[in-house]
Amino acid sequence: MKPDASGAQIEAMTQQIAGLGLTPQVIKGEHQTVVAALGQERPGMAETLEIGEGVEKVLPIMAPYKRASLEIKKDRTVVKALGLEVGGVKVAMIAGPCSVESEEQIVSIAKRLKELGATGLRGGAFKPRTSPYSFQGHKEKGLQMLAAAREATGLAIVTEVMAPEHVPMVAEYADVLQIGARNMQNYQLLQAVGDSGKPTLLKRGMSATIEEFLLAAEYILDRGNPHVMLCERGIRTFEDHTRFTLPLATVAYLQEKSHLPVVVDPSHGTGKSSLVASMSKASVAAGADGLILEVHEDPKKAASDGAQTITPAAFGQLMTDCRRVAEAVDRTM
Amino acid sequence: MKPDASGAQIEAMTQQIAGLGLTPQVIKGEHQTVVAALGQERPGMAETLEIGEGVEKVLPIMAPYKRASLEIKKDRTVVKALGLEVGGVKVAMIAGPCSVESEEQIVSIAKRLKELGATGLRGGAFKPRTSPYSFQGHKEKGLQMLAAAREATGLAIVTEVMAPEHVPMVAEYADVLQIGARNMQNYQLLQAVGDSGKPTLLKRGMSATIEEFLLAAEYILDRGNPHVMLCERGIRTFEDHTRFTLPLATVAYLQEKSHLPVVVDPSHGTGKSSLVASMSKASVAAGADGLILEVHEDPKKAASDGAQTITPAAFGQLMTDCRRVAEAVDRTM
Amino acid sequence: MKPDASGAQIEAMTQQIAGLGLTPQVIKGEHQTVVAALGQERPGMAETLEIGEGVEKVLPIMAPYKRASLEIKKDRTVVKALGLEVGGVKVAMIAGPCSVESEEQIVSIAKRLKELGATGLRGGAFKPRTSPYSFQGHKEKGLQMLAAAREATGLAIVTEVMAPEHVPMVAEYADVLQIGARNMQNYQLLQAVGDSGKPTLLKRGMSATIEEFLLAAEYILDRGNPHVMLCERGIRTFEDHTRFTLPLATVAYLQEKSHLPVVVDPSHGTGKSSLVASMSKASVAAGADGLILEVHEDPKKAASDGAQTITPAAFGQLMTDCRRVAEAVDRTM
Amino acid sequence: MKPDASGAQIEAMTQQIAGLGLTPQVIKGEHQTVVAALGQERPGMAETLEIGEGVEKVLPIMAPYKRASLEIKKDRTVVKALGLEVGGVKVAMIAGPCSVESEEQIVSIAKRLKELGATGLRGGAFKPRTSPYSFQGHKEKGLQMLAAAREATGLAIVTEVMAPEHVPMVAEYADVLQIGARNMQNYQLLQAVGDSGKPTLLKRGMSATIEEFLLAAEYILDRGNPHVMLCERGIRTFEDHTRFTLPLATVAYLQEKSHLPVVVDPSHGTGKSSLVASMSKASVAAGADGLILEVHEDPKKAASDGAQTITPAAFGQLMTDCRRVAEAVDRTM
Repeated sequence: MKPDASGAQIEAMTQQIAGLGLTPQVIKGEHQTVVAALGQERPGMAETLEIGEGVEKVLPIMAPYKRASLEIKKDRTVVKALGLEVGGVKVAMIAGPCSVESEEQIVSIAKRLKELGATGLRGGAFKPRTSPYSFQGHKEKGLQMLAAAREATGLAIVTEVMAPEHVPMVAEYADVLQIGARNMQNYQLLQAVGDSGKPTLLKRGMSATIEEFLLAAEYILDRGNPHVMLCERGIRTFEDHTRFTLPLATVAYLQEKSHLPVVVDPSHGTGKSSLVASMSKASVAAGADGLILEVHEDPKKAASDGAQTITPAAFGQLMTDCRRVAEAVDRTM
Repeated sequence: MKPDASGAQIEAMTQQIAGLGLTPQVIKGEHQTVVAALGQERPGMAETLEIGEGVEKVLPIMAPYKRASLEIKKDRTVVKALGLEVGGVKVAMIAGPCSVESEEQIVSIAKRLKELGATGLRGGAFKPRTSPYSFQGHKEKGLQMLAAAREATGLAIVTEVMAPEHVPMVAEYADVLQIGARNMQNYQLLQAVGDSGKPTLLKRGMSATIEEFLLAAEYILDRGNPHVMLCERGIRTFEDHTRFTLPLATVAYLQEKSHLPVVVDPSHGTGKSSLVASMSKASVAAGADGLILEVHEDPKKAASDGAQTITPAAFGQLMTDCRRVAEAVDRTM
Repeated sequence: MKPDASGAQIEAMTQQIAGLGLTPQVIKGEHQTVVAALGQERPGMAETLEIGEGVEKVLPIMAPYKRASLEIKKDRTVVKALGLEVGGVKVAMIAGPCSVESEEQIVSIAKRLKELGATGLRGGAFKPRTSPYSFQGHKEKGLQMLAAAREATGLAIVTEVMAPEHVPMVAEYADVLQIGARNMQNYQLLQAVGDSGKPTLLKRGMSATIEEFLLAAEYILDRGNPHVMLCERGIRTFEDHTRFTLPLATVAYLQEKSHLPVVVDPSHGTGKSSLVASMSKASVAAGADGLILEVHEDPKKAASDGAQTITPAAFGQLMTDCRRVAEAVDRTM
Repeated sequence: MKPDASGAQIEAMTQQIAGLGLTPQVIKGEHQTVVAALGQERPGMAETLEIGEGVEKVLPIMAPYKRASLEIKKDRTVVKALGLEVGGVKVAMIAGPCSVESEEQIVSIAKRLKELGATGLRGGAFKPRTSPYSFQGHKEKGLQMLAAAREATGLAIVTEVMAPEHVPMVAEYADVLQIGARNMQNYQLLQAVGDSGKPTLLKRGMSATIEEFLLAAEYILDRGNPHVMLCERGIRTFEDHTRFTLPLATVAYLQEKSHLPVVVDPSHGTGKSSLVASMSKASVAAGADGLILEVHEDPKKAASDGAQTITPAAFGQLMTDCRRVAEAVDRTM
């Protein structure tokens, strides 16, 4: 309560708290009185209490996510899709081009990536693009090309789904559904993906707090789909020398709060191919359960995101380097 | 090009530019050479050129949006829906509760708001909520309640649509479709709203640049729907004393670059009812074409967003105060 | 406390709180226990308690600033220097070039500005520049030129002081000492300015929270100098279409929390001369007690900050326009 | 130039460029004309040209820092102070308490840190504090305590200097002068430290761009002091689960642009002791040349920054773990 809150205001607040089904408890300080509200917080309660007369601020104590919380589920989740396992001792590697361009391209790069140690293949069939005039992806045809690449290599297919009505189609071809950063709070999509029961890679929104990120995961978990990976892909800040700012403290923090595995995307996280290798090693050292990287035979000719894409040769070196770092933190790769 | 770029690299770059259908032009400086590329930029070109050997950086000159640009369409757009006009001399006022709670509630508040000078009625039937456990809105029933409020008052109904498959249903009841900040880059939704031809209020994403904002509008315009209003509702920054940071320089800047009308949302932009009146006056003084505000008979009991909601009495005072400011900048209200 | 905090941990915490001279009070909830600490918070206490075993987080209730607080001093401060008064009914106007270039220039522009309604003259003699190779100002000679302009016009001189050892010299010539945004947390400088007893314009750091801003003011007030004006000049965010983001909600929020007058700087806040007029009007409508603007006879030839500088003619129009807005919010100008 | 710039405006611009001693070159595109300006850019030129009539924007090509640039000095700088070497194969470790509390404390912790592998000792004698009511450090006495710790261990002393007039005194006792984040653009201080010729650890301002950071280093280098280390310590963003956001991509990016060694501060960068170990390992994997960490015998009793401070035992484990990561990236520690 405010320092000058009246006795009547404090009394009104205790009644309002009781009216919400909570137990009020009054703590009188020298300058200010605090009214504690004991019980199960429900969303919106804090903001409703905040506008009571004489209230200074409302400070919620418990985290609003439940199913994503390590307090509720103590053993760590391992998400599995074909040979891809994320959340165990082995650091998983998902790699591939930004966009699927042709069957030949995707099958050929998939073979290279498989040889070099990837267990997941990324590639966009539906592309969310800032401009309506940009290449929007090959859509269902692209999904078929990805399926052909899986056929040829056994790699698990990780690909983005952008709209609830596309979920059944994408789920038919893909092994892991990706929800992009721009859609992290597209709740219809989260629910549709939750209903599909498919392994899901949920990317953090570029201005989402960790609480919002875990609540977005909660939307999927709440529909009965436990196979959720969290992916840090960089946030929007004032920095202008990288495309986004990649905050690796997210990795250990998420692992403190949640049982869900954490993947890092250094390609989008930096936007610069010259920074991908060092940030991949840093991610592994920070404890990431997996990496997702953009790799293309000829980044200069990539249909999208060329500036942050590395070559298969650079990828091979990066795998070797990351494997050494993984071993230095008692993991494999 | 980098200072140490070789002649061969410069030559390769001119050929790459020519291969993209552009005209290269070489400018030799003392320390560095610049290769200009003349012609129509297409998305992705800059990033593809950026990874050429010897390239330091690529600097695009032209804005990537076309239909939203004031250079392409010189006369300002006025969006009309029933008695609501946004973009003319009169500053429009859209007001109402965050959520539609009951028919009685929405009809009653609509009558008050109409008397006090609003020409649009806002109210959520579909609510995007951070947590899956929050109240998600009355959905179609809520739309019917809004329609009843229009029936009773003639106010234009402004309400959010959250998924492409809901567009036909929402368009049946609403006069203006609102696209929320979290969905600013939900491209399927933008296209569906574009196809509907309905007046649309597009909210700026909380970490969207102005270019991204105008490109999102471009998605709607590009489907043949010219009735687009841009809405500044605050961005996410390090500031923690307000819910978001409301950057009013957006108003004049958007009006410099685009012919689309600009609306400001001081309720979400501040998150605090005590700051709504001053920021409403500031928005009008900055040149806003409209305001959208959260008003509820009893903010303490509002189903959502109570902390930033004002009472009808406060709204009446705010209208009087804003009208005086509007006149001081040669507008009416 | 954490949900799994043991009884011993809770007991240890109550003893630690008592050891700090505070009164502990235990509140047991269903899932978690809260330990309240009653008494006078001292800096560092919260962070020290936070690392106790079993502690989840520490939530301070009281604001850490005292002398700047409206709760401590209920009447609003009016800062006066010659004819400049900031904090009363009249909105003050401080204007002038970014840098003092010559005596002729500064005297001539001062006369124009005086005629057009300014009561304060700004102008940099010591210039903080990002690059060591930029023009650093005329220093003491510049101060003498400013004094000549005061002589000629009676305008109060507002000029930046950058180092504690310069305070006596600058205080000899200037009527108001300005502390720049980069120096908001230069504590030696704050104390030296506090000791000088001179009216002071304290600019908000470009990434300072409001609490940090008020604590910076507290450093000056705490040395016995009550003549402090707070100046919002824009914050650093991801926005790239303006030089900074100018958050006008700061004005009303500061006025809720503090008795100190609030000035806005739309020149630095936008970085674009075309946006200065609209943001000046918006600032006045938001309740600002004063404006500080960059004006130069020929912005193209200004020694610094030309892009955000307006001409005397534009300034004259802006004064007329702002005066109308001031009247619409029951002030004069 | 703008698409509608007239021939006369283009001609005027070429003359203005020539008047600045540069060589203009006109490039006519289909919709827009670009005027290139060849020659040595000087600060302020871009902003001056930007306000010419018909100008759309000015895009500088060359980096404004010179002495800090890897293009100017191709071999990497190694900064040495006693046994501390930063910039070579060995990753340096600087550790110690936030504040020097007593001679006994600092000597005792220094011995422990030396045994565990540190080569530098950090500890604040002058403390920049947000609040005037916080502990401000033991000042010269604190410096003497640090000197005693060096005497006892041979560790190089790294300590902050906050004001130009303190530089001679701090330089007498310390081996490395630290410039804090809040003072990164305190130009008088940068120059004084430059004049001292002492090895310097320059912390990045919490909202400084990389260009501003390197220009701050340039102020020191420009006074003839080449012994500069750059320190990434986290930036201010919207994230609220850590005290700051620690962007490790800075490490490799700075090493691409500059020959100066790069140190990371995971203590301030996260603000949470539980995240320090993972971010230390990540920093080493990212290529950092050194780490600076807060270590205290009993963080709960630390005079400041307890929440981000680790114990000597945790530090010992961290050294072991980081050494393994260092070897995995072909370095020692």
